[in-house]
Amino acid sequence: MANEVTLGVVQFACTDDADENVATASRLVRDAAACGANIVLVQELFEGLYFCQEESPAHFARARPLDSAHPTLSAMKALSAELGIVLPVSLFERRNQAYFNTVVMLDAGSDLGLYRKSHIPDGPGYSEKFYFNPGDTGFRVWPTRFGVVGVGICWDQWFPEAARAMALMGAELLLYPTAIGSEPGRPDFDSMQHWRTTMRGHAGANLMPVAAANRIGTEHVGGKTQTYYGSSFIAGASGELLAETGRDGEAVLTATFDRARLAADRAAWGLFRDRRPELYGVLATLDGGPD
Amino acid sequence: MANEVTLGVVQFACTDDADENVATASRLVRDAAACGANIVLVQELFEGLYFCQEESPAHFARARPLDSAHPTLSAMKALSAELGIVLPVSLFERRNQAYFNTVVMLDAGSDLGLYRKSHIPDGPGYSEKFYFNPGDTGFRVWPTRFGVVGVGICWDQWFPEAARAMALMGAELLLYPTAIGSEPGRPDFDSMQHWRTTMRGHAGANLMPVAAANRIGTEHVGGKTQTYYGSSFIAGASGELLAETGRDGEAVLTATFDRARLAADRAAWGLFRDRRPELYGVLATLDGGPD
Repeated sequence: MANEVTLGVVQFACTDDADENVATASRLVRDAAACGANIVLVQELFEGLYFCQEESPAHFARARPLDSAHPTLSAMKALSAELGIVLPVSLFERRNQAYFNTVVMLDAGSDLGLYRKSHIPDGPGYSEKFYFNPGDTGFRVWPTRFGVVGVGICWDQWFPEAARAMALMGAELLLYPTAIGSEPGRPDFDSMQHWRTTMRGHAGANLMPVAAANRIGTEHVGGKTQTYYGSSFIAGASGELLAETGRDGEAVLTATFDRARLAADRAAWGLFRDRRPELYGVLATLDGGPD
Repeated sequence: MANEVTLGVVQFACTDDADENVATASRLVRDAAACGANIVLVQELFEGLYFCQEESPAHFARARPLDSAHPTLSAMKALSAELGIVLPVSLFERRNQAYFNTVVMLDAGSDLGLYRKSHIPDGPGYSEKFYFNPGDTGFRVWPTRFGVVGVGICWDQWFPEAARAMALMGAELLLYPTAIGSEPGRPDFDSMQHWRTTMRGHAGANLMPVAAANRIGTEHVGGKTQTYYGSSFIAGASGELLAETGRDGEAVLTATFDRARLAADRAAWGLFRDRRPELYGVLATLDGGPD
């Protein structure tokens, strides 16, 4: 594995035309690679509109098996091979009777396997429990040519358990493809800083870079409207913002890391040395355990 | 329990005179109570200098049993009773052959029990493993007259497991008495923002206020010198800074919370609903578990 790694994050607005979205994603991924990015993060479910705004049986038709006939996966595989980059690809997966919100990890065109979103949200505008089975893969990290990469998907980014699990499994970078924005019925509510702060906390606690790629734009789905707040970012190993962008424009962000230095700092801090798993039993409960 | 609660945090420089430190702490706690604080957080081991700068057998004499003869505990108990406040008190505890870095939770003069620091640091300037047994109480939360309060002690503040455990056990507020500052031999290194970001992340991830009280001042112990960076703060349930102070001056901070509203927001977010404990087994390992 290379020691120096440049992480790229792209941000754009999606339409309901998959070909157009794949073309936009490809253009921005090429831009990131031209800026030196070895790993490029694209937002969640970028093939189309964020259909989870509404609960409609029609949207299940968007899911496909993740096989060699999958047009977006094939296009991304070719792009990953051509550019020699690591490229996590977020897709709506169908397998037999199950539907998952899934990331496939590509490394220079090789398919390293998949991760299925573990934490599934449900609330106005984010009706994911209607569509997705809770992921059954557990957390995954992948040794790539540019370091060990862990990926969580959107709602996973709020859970310290997910970040910590990936860190314990050897992750050196944590990536979160995302779709988040306005909340229906709450026009004055904005979670952007909360969203960033929580992930920057994962970076600080796990002493490793964390990045999120979020969509932008206003989308109309089934008579509903939602605006995604972008604000994609790359945080360093102390949770500091190294690269960030705004709520509106298309963007390509990059940041470069020295993996050996990050690993040395993680060891010297002693946070992974001083954990007390024998005291963490309560984390395996939902309600704090027996009284 | 009252619904509205005002949290106070105090910050000051310690000397090597326990009476003087107890007097300073008492004065500032009174100031916080005069500002309406119902719960007041005082920094870690405020009875004296931060002796863990060096490893010296002489410093074990600073530890005392936490019984009715303990002068600082008695003084704080009287203060807590007089002011009708919740007051966690950080002390160097001796019990039989064991030594702990301990907090005693006082509520209007009642002793609700103790928590012994779970995560013990060890590095230049912070040689705590020389002095303290790793705490054996597990994480604790206490139902007080002003809400359910969880306390971690300094190094505990870096561990998402500790914050999450206390949240799962019913905590509504997380408090961290602290002693942190410069790093010997690394004059250019400053962890202040990293320190804050990590705890603000706990607030955001657990949807509850988090506060830290840190000491200030330059201390000389056994020929060594360290400067503590203060910067005590109160973060709200989105990780936002509600009250903060600088690196130097004595300070009293307060922030007021509506417990019912915080609880309603925690439920509505769904983060505690969507956890997947069956996927968290790796958190019980140090190395990510079997290959």
